[in-house]
Amino acid sequence: MPHAFLLHLSPSKPTPRHKNLHQYTQGLFYHLLERIDPELSAAVHAAKRNPFTLWAKEQREGVMLRVSVLDDALFQPLLRVVLEESLSGLELGQDSYRVARVLATPEGHPDAGYLSWQEILSAQPTNRLELHFLSPTVFATSKASKRLYTPLPQPDLLLKSLFESFQHFSPQPYSAAEKAALQEVFSTYTVISSHSIKTRLHLAGKQPLTGFVGTASLRYIEHAAQVMCALGRLKQLMFFSGVGAKTSYGMGQLR
Amino acid sequence: MPHAFLLHLSPSKPTPRHKNLHQYTQGLFYHLLERIDPELSAAVHAAKRNPFTLWAKEQREGVMLRVSVLDDALFQPLLRVVLEESLSGLELGQDSYRVARVLATPEGHPDAGYLSWQEILSAQPTNRLELHFLSPTVFATSKASKRLYTPLPQPDLLLKSLFESFQHFSPQPYSAAEKAALQEVFSTYTVISSHSIKTRLHLAGKQPLTGFVGTASLRYIEHAAQVMCALGRLKQLMFFSGVGAKTSYGMGQLR
Repeated sequence: MPHAFLLHLSPSKPTPRHKNLHQYTQGLFYHLLERIDPELSAAVHAAKRNPFTLWAKEQREGVMLRVSVLDDALFQPLLRVVLEESLSGLELGQDSYRVARVLATPEGHPDAGYLSWQEILSAQPTNRLELHFLSPTVFATSKASKRLYTPLPQPDLLLKSLFESFQHFSPQPYSAAEKAALQEVFSTYTVISSHSIKTRLHLAGKQPLTGFVGTASLRYIEHAAQVMCALGRLKQLMFFSGVGAKTSYGMGQLR
Repeated sequence: MPHAFLLHLSPSKPTPRHKNLHQYTQGLFYHLLERIDPELSAAVHAAKRNPFTLWAKEQREGVMLRVSVLDDALFQPLLRVVLEESLSGLELGQDSYRVARVLATPEGHPDAGYLSWQEILSAQPTNRLELHFLSPTVFATSKASKRLYTPLPQPDLLLKSLFESFQHFSPQPYSAAEKAALQEVFSTYTVISSHSIKTRLHLAGKQPLTGFVGTASLRYIEHAAQVMCALGRLKQLMFFSGVGAKTSYGMGQLR
């Protein structure tokens, strides 16, 4: 069951702002996985797609860390170890924090929530995604062995990223033939019908990357039922999966 | 010699705002061509790429019409017939206008100017284009016989459009082999390094189209001399050619 929850982390003593917060939060996350189970940590490290996203924001009273997990097995043990470790202090860089609040439901915070895979799979079909890019979003579009990044909401890149997350984590992925047909439609019959966006620099771990924030409307211009069904599923999934590159470093968070 | 000039058109009596100004200005333009030479008008009508762009803005005291021409043979006769016809009145829809001012140099208006092809061909090489999209810009990206438009500054679409204008109008176009090599580089080694854009609806003739306005920086990430030379030429040309679809209906005007 995909989950998203927020941890309000409060410093044990006044601390300066972290220049590289997302490097620290990823370090903390892997430390917590290690405490749950060293094998789990190694498996997540080695995974081709991260089964989680992390997004940290410095606030007046500490750090608000949003964690989303796509893997059913992660949520319960993660929350347990967070609360256990919080007693002795959670480290971000050199500084020690405690969990002041956990917000795990949409009533507690609009960025928190959960959906069963069954709910995602039976999502309302749609031909339109209204996207709000809350954190800088960028797509890895390396070509000819050059590392390149595209900070534009191209519908083909958006849907490819979301669809690959779906295929990787859904208990009922599409067959190879269905996948090929859907990807063909995504790259041919979808358009961005409006947008208002701008680029913003983001420190993804140690790497500065330019992503975009803002809003965009994506529209599927035909009406095939299976495509609209797939778009409905991706619309539900994106809250948990994020989109594009470096979602474990605070990028690609969208609603 | 590519030219851009502005005509300040003043109505002979108070007129309401035109809902469809760009349909009228294109009608006026073809009427003027017809007066110069019916064969010229027919040839421009039939041309695969428009040798001109038109961009009209309603102002408090009439209409400011920017005309750019890429074809050496057009500027002088066009200006002559504009001034001649102005005496009896230039028609936009049902309303009659006179030319209150002609602004044909950058001193007169920053959107006016001219460059010889020799100046464009010997332009300073560059690896960076700073683009300011003044009027809504969109690219025709029809696929699978569907009419589609992309309102995003994708570097491949931007450079393809500018490059095709160059190839069509330059007295020294690139050879087929050079063209293929440049287009490969344009689609592989160029990125949008920053942008701030939003969509805006535009009535292109009778067709409502969504384009984007704003700013974007395009960067070529390698340093091949021939590519930087080509980008320098396109940088000079874009002032006159505009970019993307419907440049004769006020779209794709950039600096």
